[in-house]
Amino acid sequence: MAVMFSTMIVAGVGLIGGSLALAAKEKGLVGEVVGFGRNEANLRLAKTRGMLDRYFAAPERFPEEADFLVLGTPVGSIVPLAQAFLPRIKKGCLVSDVGSVKAELVGSMERLLKKDAFFVGAHPIAGSEKWGPKAAKADLFRGRRCIVTPTRNTNRGAMKKMCSFWRRIGARVELMDPRIHDRVLGVVSHLPHVVAYNLVNTLDRTRIPNLDLSRYCGGGFRDTTRIASSRPELWRDICLMNRASLIKGIDDYIRGLERLRRWIREGEAENLEKEFTQALTVRNRLG
Amino acid sequence: MAVMFSTMIVAGVGLIGGSLALAAKEKGLVGEVVGFGRNEANLRLAKTRGMLDRYFAAPERFPEEADFLVLGTPVGSIVPLAQAFLPRIKKGCLVSDVGSVKAELVGSMERLLKKDAFFVGAHPIAGSEKWGPKAAKADLFRGRRCIVTPTRNTNRGAMKKMCSFWRRIGARVELMDPRIHDRVLGVVSHLPHVVAYNLVNTLDRTRIPNLDLSRYCGGGFRDTTRIASSRPELWRDICLMNRASLIKGIDDYIRGLERLRRWIREGEAENLEKEFTQALTVRNRLG
Repeated sequence: MAVMFSTMIVAGVGLIGGSLALAAKEKGLVGEVVGFGRNEANLRLAKTRGMLDRYFAAPERFPEEADFLVLGTPVGSIVPLAQAFLPRIKKGCLVSDVGSVKAELVGSMERLLKKDAFFVGAHPIAGSEKWGPKAAKADLFRGRRCIVTPTRNTNRGAMKKMCSFWRRIGARVELMDPRIHDRVLGVVSHLPHVVAYNLVNTLDRTRIPNLDLSRYCGGGFRDTTRIASSRPELWRDICLMNRASLIKGIDDYIRGLERLRRWIREGEAENLEKEFTQALTVRNRLG
Repeated sequence: MAVMFSTMIVAGVGLIGGSLALAAKEKGLVGEVVGFGRNEANLRLAKTRGMLDRYFAAPERFPEEADFLVLGTPVGSIVPLAQAFLPRIKKGCLVSDVGSVKAELVGSMERLLKKDAFFVGAHPIAGSEKWGPKAAKADLFRGRRCIVTPTRNTNRGAMKKMCSFWRRIGARVELMDPRIHDRVLGVVSHLPHVVAYNLVNTLDRTRIPNLDLSRYCGGGFRDTTRIASSRPELWRDICLMNRASLIKGIDDYIRGLERLRRWIREGEAENLEKEFTQALTVRNRLG
């Protein structure tokens, strides 16, 4: 297949950025991949593992020949980083990201880049509680959904190219309004993370004298809290950038819990069973 | 090894009861295993799969020669069932259960059986979201914890025999006060189930026009809600029988969520990151 970009910059060579670099190289979609990051050990590791042809660690050394820039750092640092690169981003460069929150970010990026470069937001749904270049793999996106979030400001050619890039590395591309994206992800992903973090900390705050509660956690507790091992600074940023949707999700969630608590307190067996049966039915459909 | 009981009755031939029957037979700890249940198809299946030598479906046909009775039905039906069997339970019969809630149950069973039979409560921590005789397997308890919950009324000989039985089928036996048991399990098991059921139903109640939210659920949502596939009537009973501890757990949990919500609303990045990092640390220790 034809090379789509001659110089691809991947800023943030972690699970997603690293996997994207690997996949792009494997599929022959890029001439070279240049990595950027704050942690040189990570960059060296990524180069050794074949993700990068070269790398740089100071924003002012951003390669001016770059025609494709993917921002793969935690969502809170994407805009500041783009700002630091901006003086050296060439006209017509395609800029994208892989962030889990879109509306605020897409708006900021469009205001920042104006007509100098083409911004197209994207979010591959292929996260994991693992992170860093060690967790990266070329087939991470194969068969996974990638949500591309154009707005009325998005250049159509750039959007088509972006979709084609994701399809060629195996993702199932879907277009979505950035605000809808944030409402959806707020419920299916961001809320579960808050729920899981809070379950672990509820355990941690519960004290029973002479007894280590964590010794009694079985498979149920472990599954329910697996994603509480996710990278804290990443999820801090996601929670703050998807504030409105997430707070609505937490509100709904607390209302549900309060109702369950009332039914338990008042011995409402039938309501409880109905509620659990409904959850079972919905859950089993997910597979 | 020597046979410990000549006739073992297993009432409720599901995941736990069925696995216990299989294990007792495999280790040669029982002369025969007789099953009881309301569902004859399940009993037939259990007999075909070698868990039972025979079975009965009417409580008044309880075999009078039984010297070991294990009650493996949902916790809400254990006491009524023991009451139905009572006229035919012989003096000195060892009666136990495998229920996930202990304090109320143990008290009721002791009052019911008085000195006619020996009751020893037990809870093997080997649950699963799967259920029924199909899910049963002889090694379910190997290496798993079994909490035995004696009180000052418990016959010491019966308790020792019960512990020895569980050890011989491979469980790691631990003694615990029934009320402590309920506080521990309320946090490590019952609360996570309520949390998971409620997460699925929060998703189910969220409406976004022309969009099926469940299509966007990834591995994180699925792991976090795996136990929402657990048997509804079982968990209805557990929630109602461990009311006090579970309500306390839900209170603590909601307080934690409300604090996280406040931090998200007010942009308290540092507090959020600290909270998530603490959860990560505790969770990673669980393995």
